[in-house]
Amino acid sequence: MKLTPKGMRDIGPEDMFIREEAIGRIRQTFQSFGYRPLETPAMEYLETLRAKAGPEVDKQIFVIDGGEYGLRFDLTVPLARYASATDAPKPFKRYAIDVVWRKEEPQRGRFREFYQADVDIVGSLSMRCESELLTIASAICGAFGFPERRILLNNRKILDGIASKLGIGGDAKGEVFRVLDKLDKIGEAEVEKLLGEIVGNEKTGELLSIIRAKGDNRSRLALAAKYSEEGARELGEILALCDFVVEVDLFLVRGLGYYTGPVFEIKLSEGIGTVMAGGRYDGLLGIYGQDAPAVGISVGIERLVTLLAEQKKAILKKTDSRVFVACAKPEFYPYAAQVAAEFRKAGIACETDLNERSLRKQFEYANSLAIPFAAIVGEREKKDKSVTLRDMSGGKEEVLPIQDAISRLLGR
Amino acid sequence: MKLTPKGMRDIGPEDMFIREEAIGRIRQTFQSFGYRPLETPAMEYLETLRAKAGPEVDKQIFVIDGGEYGLRFDLTVPLARYASATDAPKPFKRYAIDVVWRKEEPQRGRFREFYQADVDIVGSLSMRCESELLTIASAICGAFGFPERRILLNNRKILDGIASKLGIGGDAKGEVFRVLDKLDKIGEAEVEKLLGEIVGNEKTGELLSIIRAKGDNRSRLALAAKYSEEGARELGEILALCDFVVEVDLFLVRGLGYYTGPVFEIKLSEGIGTVMAGGRYDGLLGIYGQDAPAVGISVGIERLVTLLAEQKKAILKKTDSRVFVACAKPEFYPYAAQVAAEFRKAGIACETDLNERSLRKQFEYANSLAIPFAAIVGEREKKDKSVTLRDMSGGKEEVLPIQDAISRLLGR
Repeated sequence: MKLTPKGMRDIGPEDMFIREEAIGRIRQTFQSFGYRPLETPAMEYLETLRAKAGPEVDKQIFVIDGGEYGLRFDLTVPLARYASATDAPKPFKRYAIDVVWRKEEPQRGRFREFYQADVDIVGSLSMRCESELLTIASAICGAFGFPERRILLNNRKILDGIASKLGIGGDAKGEVFRVLDKLDKIGEAEVEKLLGEIVGNEKTGELLSIIRAKGDNRSRLALAAKYSEEGARELGEILALCDFVVEVDLFLVRGLGYYTGPVFEIKLSEGIGTVMAGGRYDGLLGIYGQDAPAVGISVGIERLVTLLAEQKKAILKKTDSRVFVACAKPEFYPYAAQVAAEFRKAGIACETDLNERSLRKQFEYANSLAIPFAAIVGEREKKDKSVTLRDMSGGKEEVLPIQDAISRLLGR
Repeated sequence: MKLTPKGMRDIGPEDMFIREEAIGRIRQTFQSFGYRPLETPAMEYLETLRAKAGPEVDKQIFVIDGGEYGLRFDLTVPLARYASATDAPKPFKRYAIDVVWRKEEPQRGRFREFYQADVDIVGSLSMRCESELLTIASAICGAFGFPERRILLNNRKILDGIASKLGIGGDAKGEVFRVLDKLDKIGEAEVEKLLGEIVGNEKTGELLSIIRAKGDNRSRLALAAKYSEEGARELGEILALCDFVVEVDLFLVRGLGYYTGPVFEIKLSEGIGTVMAGGRYDGLLGIYGQDAPAVGISVGIERLVTLLAEQKKAILKKTDSRVFVACAKPEFYPYAAQVAAEFRKAGIACETDLNERSLRKQFEYANSLAIPFAAIVGEREKKDKSVTLRDMSGGKEEVLPIQDAISRLLGR
């Protein structure tokens, strides 16, 4: 029988524990800033998805039942659809941590079904929003124990200003941005070559001299202001509100066509690449209903999960069970079940023998899941309302009344 | 622009908080018994789904991209596919709380996309499994504050035994079971009529006289043993291990064709109907790979969420934010952001003004989300590293150093 569909996978218990820890940390950060949860259907009307998807994304949509619906390819379209119709207080600050689907060619570490974790703010034009989103990004890096990160910031208005000054408009502008966006993948030399093919060598030289200009944020913003005063001012406002390092990077585009203002990207190190990215998209909601300004950031959970696992920064476990209640003989199972119930009442996750196996087999099972303790019950234990608590790593055993065993397991 | 697909819906923040609480309680119960999480793709190969789906379910499958894949209609098929190939220690105890999709005609309270919460045990023939699953069901009723519940238990082996004694076999047997399964929907009189059409009035009379027999569990099991000694003995074993009321109900079928042993159903009250159900399906895994015995129970989250909301048994809230940090004037926003950061560091979810609004407008926003406190900052507060803490319900205000405000908010 066939296994999982192409580019998709099962996530077994051990990987789930890491994933849940990652998602838990991200959710907790989102909540601490007052973002509110929203869940939307997995599928949307195809026309809802297509209203935003560019031609690149369009062919990646999984189409359902002949074509009326498609699976969502991101969490921004459903948010825009919802927020353009909601009467929730503004700003509407929402988070969503959920699955999206894209029919891409599967690659190493790239799947057709994956999680995204998004926060978005609908209903505010203030740059306070951008600074809050970068603060959240910074907090998530901290929560994951990744202090080494680069937060890059640019503004579409500046890029637009440069393009317009250089006389790059229409289709050429879109193409130029798409090429710039590929910098990480293809490198600067290739970018230069491709730009030359689109706008000629002279304009390419001018463009690159601007966006590659050396210097600190201040000098880059001064340069940027020549092309878009508003764009540079907005970035200055954001920087003033961030008490951590943010780098103005005039090379940064962010692929999506719908961004209208500041865009940002967080990289963990040169090699690992982007783990979070976002920007302002003030025009998008209007497509779906009532227009409103909006800005958001998306956290790449899959990459963070992989990192957590590789760097062993998550708690690696096979089960929540802290103790296995073992039966010396099958007839003591009712007492074992009773002991397990007492443990659970005290908040201790535990399990008993469901297979009527020998004590040796029960220990083998407990060890296979790395359950740290066994509580063995037999005739004496049943009579005394006690258990023989066994440390599965050292093999040390001690007969204890149930309540004392609970205290021991709780580390009191 | 169109909204959500037919029979599907957005779940806004207020409803999400209730839902998360329900899911959290269920997950916590599953974990306390040592069940381990498994997540599988939303879609499966269509042939994987069809291997289990009866003709009723088949037409409810959402088909993807021309027919290679379909969206899962339950969590049992993916479990069976996974568990028939895994080398995880046995018993493999897994839980899954996830979305499933069925293209049914939408009705009140019935959706085409909904959650299920399942626990299953793969790899044990012992009736300890059934008793553990019923214990979990009972614990979940307790965790939701629903002490009034009926736990009904039957065994497919008994039903098979009765059918065989009465000479009801082949297609007629399946039809008879399907009619019995509709008891809750159509009532006893209609069941009797339909059965008569299938097997004649005489056999219908005999059949009903058996499964409707009055008496306690003991007398019902004694009667059942005449048709399947093994089936009755299994139920006896389960009952002996349950320290709560379980009713043997020979009328209980549970619709699914793949059940092979004990089946069970938990009802909250006559009116509300079934909130959990399950049974043993020892033959299913063999369809997908390596065979193994299996038994599971499914919790109807949607119904529990509705009940929690109706009975106001969940914490009803609009946001996690405990305090809104308000700016007397825009120039104090950097200090407001700093105060908010201190609050978050202390574990207090909070938010600030992202719209550069007047104090009155800020209060309106905080009130619209029922945020209980405001921490107002202005010139004096900034100078003193303090806040003016305002109780939003009574309007009482007090100037406090940040740390004292934190203590107050934490209820110390």
